[in-house]
Amino acid sequence: MQSGDTSNREDKFQARKLEVTDKSKGFIELLQQLSVCDSVSDKQFEERFQELSSYGEDHLVCVIEDNRSGKIIATGSMFIEKKFLRNCGKVGHIEDVVVDASTRGMQLGKKIIKFLTDHAHAMGCYKVILDCIVDNKGFYEKCGFKQKEIQMAMYFV
Amino acid sequence: MQSGDTSNREDKFQARKLEVTDKSKGFIELLQQLSVCDSVSDKQFEERFQELSSYGEDHLVCVIEDNRSGKIIATGSMFIEKKFLRNCGKVGHIEDVVVDASTRGMQLGKKIIKFLTDHAHAMGCYKVILDCIVDNKGFYEKCGFKQKEIQMAMYFV
Repeated sequence: MQSGDTSNREDKFQARKLEVTDKSKGFIELLQQLSVCDSVSDKQFEERFQELSSYGEDHLVCVIEDNRSGKIIATGSMFIEKKFLRNCGKVGHIEDVVVDASTRGMQLGKKIIKFLTDHAHAMGCYKVILDCIVDNKGFYEKCGFKQKEIQMAMYFV
Repeated sequence: MQSGDTSNREDKFQARKLEVTDKSKGFIELLQQLSVCDSVSDKQFEERFQELSSYGEDHLVCVIEDNRSGKIIATGSMFIEKKFLRNCGKVGHIEDVVVDASTRGMQLGKKIIKFLTDHAHAMGCYKVILDCIVDNKGFYEKCGFKQKEIQMAMYFV
């Protein structure tokens, strides 16, 4: 074996794009650790998957699979907003980042964020933004983000 | 004339969707009051306009035109994000809200926000979110928003 422990671990936990078969690997159960997500049928999942795929490179759901267990253990998504501002600039929006509670401390969150921000950079975005709870500020600072504005929300349900 | 002063004013300042001819009505100059937006050629503008139009009801740029001067005096945009979370839920994101400095205090900002949030509601979003500077928190609270999280940003340029 040529690689040491570190690269070996990296091989095991590669970030990649979501595949339609990931629903059966615990993808929805992982999202449930972040927020409300009850029953998503296979049909609903496939329809949303196809809908998001139709945006091409402007939408990306990133996952990390644990190859030993066959489970999805981390995810995050990004969509690219096209503006008139900033000379018709583009902005990457990161959403729904979650790392399985049993695998925290393994830098999987950082890997997800790097995968998403690298994509935004490659797509020509001038910035990437995300909203998070104050408790996660330190994590995103370590990823290279800085606090900027505040988020306001209006709920319909 | 059947309408009083108030409804008369409302008739003058109706929120509507951006049209491709609005570039010649000061739309870009209005955006410049919010952030950096140097030179946008007619070609660039039309391309971005067509690109955004291709998203159909999932993207909306709202404007208010002053019919006396023929100038665009307020704008705001919204795109609808499609998630797996919240049972394949949808979220409205408000961006790039600006009211011409000479017309502030005429409730045009509120009219823009109402137009955009009504659209999100009609499209079945479970919430609408936006990021703003702390100074604008009071305005958005009057529009029915509450402070929720913090925004983190990473700039590439």
